[in-house]
Amino acid sequence: MSTRFKISTTSGHARTGVVKTAHGDIRTPAFMPVGTAATVKAMMPESVAATGADILLGNTYHLMLRPTAERIDALGGLHKFMHWDKPILTDSGGFQVMSLAQLRKITEKGVTFQSHIDGSKYELSPERSMEIQHLLGSDITMIFDECTPFPATEKVAEKSMELSLRWARRSKDAYKPRKGYGLFGIVQGSVYHELRKRSAEALIDIGFDGYAIGGLAVGEGQKVMLEVLDYTAPLLPEDKPRYLMGVGKPDDIIEAVRRGIDMFDCVIPTRSGRNGQAFTRYGTLNIKNAKFADDARPLDEKCECPACKDYSRAYLHHLVRSGEILGSMLMTWHNLRFYQDLMAGLRAAIEEGRLDDFEADFFLPKQA
Amino acid sequence: MSTRFKISTTSGHARTGVVKTAHGDIRTPAFMPVGTAATVKAMMPESVAATGADILLGNTYHLMLRPTAERIDALGGLHKFMHWDKPILTDSGGFQVMSLAQLRKITEKGVTFQSHIDGSKYELSPERSMEIQHLLGSDITMIFDECTPFPATEKVAEKSMELSLRWARRSKDAYKPRKGYGLFGIVQGSVYHELRKRSAEALIDIGFDGYAIGGLAVGEGQKVMLEVLDYTAPLLPEDKPRYLMGVGKPDDIIEAVRRGIDMFDCVIPTRSGRNGQAFTRYGTLNIKNAKFADDARPLDEKCECPACKDYSRAYLHHLVRSGEILGSMLMTWHNLRFYQDLMAGLRAAIEEGRLDDFEADFFLPKQA
Repeated sequence: MSTRFKISTTSGHARTGVVKTAHGDIRTPAFMPVGTAATVKAMMPESVAATGADILLGNTYHLMLRPTAERIDALGGLHKFMHWDKPILTDSGGFQVMSLAQLRKITEKGVTFQSHIDGSKYELSPERSMEIQHLLGSDITMIFDECTPFPATEKVAEKSMELSLRWARRSKDAYKPRKGYGLFGIVQGSVYHELRKRSAEALIDIGFDGYAIGGLAVGEGQKVMLEVLDYTAPLLPEDKPRYLMGVGKPDDIIEAVRRGIDMFDCVIPTRSGRNGQAFTRYGTLNIKNAKFADDARPLDEKCECPACKDYSRAYLHHLVRSGEILGSMLMTWHNLRFYQDLMAGLRAAIEEGRLDDFEADFFLPKQA
Repeated sequence: MSTRFKISTTSGHARTGVVKTAHGDIRTPAFMPVGTAATVKAMMPESVAATGADILLGNTYHLMLRPTAERIDALGGLHKFMHWDKPILTDSGGFQVMSLAQLRKITEKGVTFQSHIDGSKYELSPERSMEIQHLLGSDITMIFDECTPFPATEKVAEKSMELSLRWARRSKDAYKPRKGYGLFGIVQGSVYHELRKRSAEALIDIGFDGYAIGGLAVGEGQKVMLEVLDYTAPLLPEDKPRYLMGVGKPDDIIEAVRRGIDMFDCVIPTRSGRNGQAFTRYGTLNIKNAKFADDARPLDEKCECPACKDYSRAYLHHLVRSGEILGSMLMTWHNLRFYQDLMAGLRAAIEEGRLDDFEADFFLPKQA
């Protein structure tokens, strides 16, 4: 039953390993590209796989509204629907309900809200979220929780964390275990050590296949986020994968890996790519900048993605400035490849005991 | 010197052949996807080639404005800039100046106009158009002409045709011949047989590597267009390629091939694809239609493009309805593949002497 996690190497708090799922292995530390509406925006799924991604993330909130979980199930599940045969993790919908939906109302039972697409009314609860994620066929299901707003007083954060714990129990009860499929808990408690501790202990007591740290990357800043990781990661079982939700920029990921995090997801590489921002070994480049109009060099000479192998910065500049779809396609591909190269580099550095030197080895001096 | 044309088979007026250029062979009858701004919208160039395209079309007007011909030349030419190593034909800019530019003014010398992008002022003339197409590195350069408006009186059409003839001579004089590169003339004369005859004869007298028929597909309707082809195609040399500019829908192409046309270009497959219209062996489908929301079938079961092999109509419906870039990518890919399959089917039918039965062989009964 369930997903399995095997640790290969540890180096300080950092570790490499493999999460085994019904649709294959996830090498950790892993970055999961976000495939919100059953597509990683501007990418063919085989291209996402070619960047080195072992798993992608789907959004319960978006998919329940359109095309609906029941429709995806009738069409053979999310893997078949979007032509992706590797693992999929779905979030529970809670975060997007808070950030996107209208007229939301939270009760002990769950959340009611109106769709941001057409205003129609929906309900989401631990039981309904488990049902939707089951219909989608997710390899890794996330418990339904309340994403505590930031900033929150300790009292507000405590109330929210306790509601999430009750919903975590109901999620576990409603979840239908299957071989190779797993259910992850989510530690809440905002920036309060005592609350994170109580949340982690209660979740471990319920028992999950992995543990996420939620409620971060919501505006608290990297310093505070890393402080929370410093005391939260050690609260989690050594032998289960740890997932930092919604993070982040390359340096956030490097620092979190150093603190023992195994899994990440974030829209930054895809969204930034569509907006013309490239992550490279020289730092970030805004390809719209006029200085790139005549630049015959590739984005990143060490990168082997098509955007870097076959095209100049001048061409990418032209595409993005002209609003051409190929600009979004190539910039997204590059950023996803950069993120996967970063993860592969981190895994190699852990295995070879040189994580302390990682930045110096991986990055290059800034260019003019 | 110049491009060469070899006819393989004829069947009635229709023929198959090969145009040999510096960047390779073009199998005719050929359909050229339009790569307006140095990109076939929503497609990687290797995917365009995978659909079966031997050549694509670039737009002088768009490229002279952005990123400019001089910049493309400095970066190694259009083939290298856009990573396409097969033949490229560029139009002369005349048509887009008429349809897109602002404040245009035509004199004997040429055209002045303002960019539709930023309002800055430009000049285009036979000499400048030849220079731009040379800088781009086009395998096939089109003479600079005036696209006669439709409808036009015979007197207006005559004056316009005569201006185009004088510009054709200046284009020929300004063009720098190179081995494997060719210059095509453009027959004008609107819907007037006598004018088309005078235009064709004068162009043949100047001498070009191929002959285009311009000023059609501008609102005259298929019946009138085919009447013009009926009398214009026989005016053109048997041993040079004939190119019908800006055409068209599948049935336009089939009828024009029957009348001896060898080359076509049109934005319909790409633009329609982005708008959710698919060309299939069952006719056209608007994938946004609600009836496709649960349709597990491929767009066209006989098509081998990724959109048809890997995805359902339901998924494409979802993507296009959701405004996802992958919807534009897959729909464009399918339509370009459909057009290339159509051309391959036409070439095979000519070679096997069964062009009369083409529709019955190629298309399938309409579906529910």
